[in-house]
Amino acid sequence: MTYCVAMHLADGLVFVSDSRTNAGIDKISTFRKLFTFGVPGERLIVLQTAGNLATSQSVIKLLQQRLGGERANLHQVATLYDATALVAETLREVVARDAAPLAADTDLTCSFLVGGQIADGPTELYSIYPQGNFIQATEDTPFLQLGESKYGRSILVRNLAYGSGLEEALRCALLSFDSTIRSNLSVSMPLDLLVYRRDSLEIPSGYRVSEDDPYFASIRRQWATGLKALFDQLPQVPTVYSGGPATEWL
Amino acid sequence: MTYCVAMHLADGLVFVSDSRTNAGIDKISTFRKLFTFGVPGERLIVLQTAGNLATSQSVIKLLQQRLGGERANLHQVATLYDATALVAETLREVVARDAAPLAADTDLTCSFLVGGQIADGPTELYSIYPQGNFIQATEDTPFLQLGESKYGRSILVRNLAYGSGLEEALRCALLSFDSTIRSNLSVSMPLDLLVYRRDSLEIPSGYRVSEDDPYFASIRRQWATGLKALFDQLPQVPTVYSGGPATEWL
Repeated sequence: MTYCVAMHLADGLVFVSDSRTNAGIDKISTFRKLFTFGVPGERLIVLQTAGNLATSQSVIKLLQQRLGGERANLHQVATLYDATALVAETLREVVARDAAPLAADTDLTCSFLVGGQIADGPTELYSIYPQGNFIQATEDTPFLQLGESKYGRSILVRNLAYGSGLEEALRCALLSFDSTIRSNLSVSMPLDLLVYRRDSLEIPSGYRVSEDDPYFASIRRQWATGLKALFDQLPQVPTVYSGGPATEWL
Repeated sequence: MTYCVAMHLADGLVFVSDSRTNAGIDKISTFRKLFTFGVPGERLIVLQTAGNLATSQSVIKLLQQRLGGERANLHQVATLYDATALVAETLREVVARDAAPLAADTDLTCSFLVGGQIADGPTELYSIYPQGNFIQATEDTPFLQLGESKYGRSILVRNLAYGSGLEEALRCALLSFDSTIRSNLSVSMPLDLLVYRRDSLEIPSGYRVSEDDPYFASIRRQWATGLKALFDQLPQVPTVYSGGPATEWL
């Protein structure tokens, strides 16, 4: 499995990915799922991937190899929309190539999140489905997820808004990964993250959160302790819930 | 969809079910998913259901109709294990009857949670898979879920233990439903719950938590407010996470 979150916010974009891949529970590995393309001062395009690793690696590699060539590539497309369409087209190309004739029955599909900014265009964030079509994040829905999205969703729904600051949003994303990692063995450390400030047109190097990262460890601890305390402070269930006079169940 | 939780604890058993059924998003209804069998002072057997409604209703109805008859029934089986095997057998009977010849391609399966106590036997809790085989909850894993289990799982994992009190466990289950209801439209109020104290051999009437239940509304509010405050209190992400000197993203 995989878990990736990308956030489209007034101040910019936040991307966090796990790095666990598995072909069966007995064959797990660590692979980066967050990739950056761009030209400083002109464009930043961030990709996150989930799904078939052979396919996603080929898509990324072809997108990289074609930079600067004659054909359409991520260094010359004019908009984020065009960049996303190009990633989707490359996905279809790789799946078509690898499916026939040997892997017709294999699921070769994968999904992508594509976000960034090109020149004086807006910051945008898209999600490409395994079928190759895609949707865009809006102010109403400022985050998109890939992979194991359920365990870590409620913390995002509860705390994230389009107007959330970048630091606050990143903190929220890290807690979302905490919940997911606790619940699904196939989502695991290290985490790769990248924060992009709107209109900076920088290409941030991003950061890798390792297993023993002191900050991540501390907020996981504080969150767990705080949740327990919060739970203990809630008023007790009224005896009417026992469905009768039986108070001894309390 | 459906969400049901059952807990196997030192002090007894806790059962909570939602009541939303849907055949497509445009065809939703309210059906009870928690059913009680038993003889006061002798046995209590609680069933929770998820899956094909026609199948689960037929299974429950047949189990009820056969009480007191000649053949094996829930009022005369000697153990909870036998009760669970009987429910599974009835599930296979109904699916076999309804599948041929008209519904061969329809998914008629459903799942059950079966918990309770018979005479001086232990309290036990089982989960019957759609295939008809089943597992039992242990002290290591004191709760079982049916249906949309992911959104509400982490609150259970974080707060529930075999030694948890019945009231505490029920409060935890209610919060688990809060998270699930917020995230999945196909899980909805009212909730049906039942708490059984070990060795009481009572048949509790249980309780229905309605949309406007003041206690449930109050803990949902307090939990939401508390989570937000807890989140705001967490230390800010260190600037090293920006991947460079860029502190202005904070």
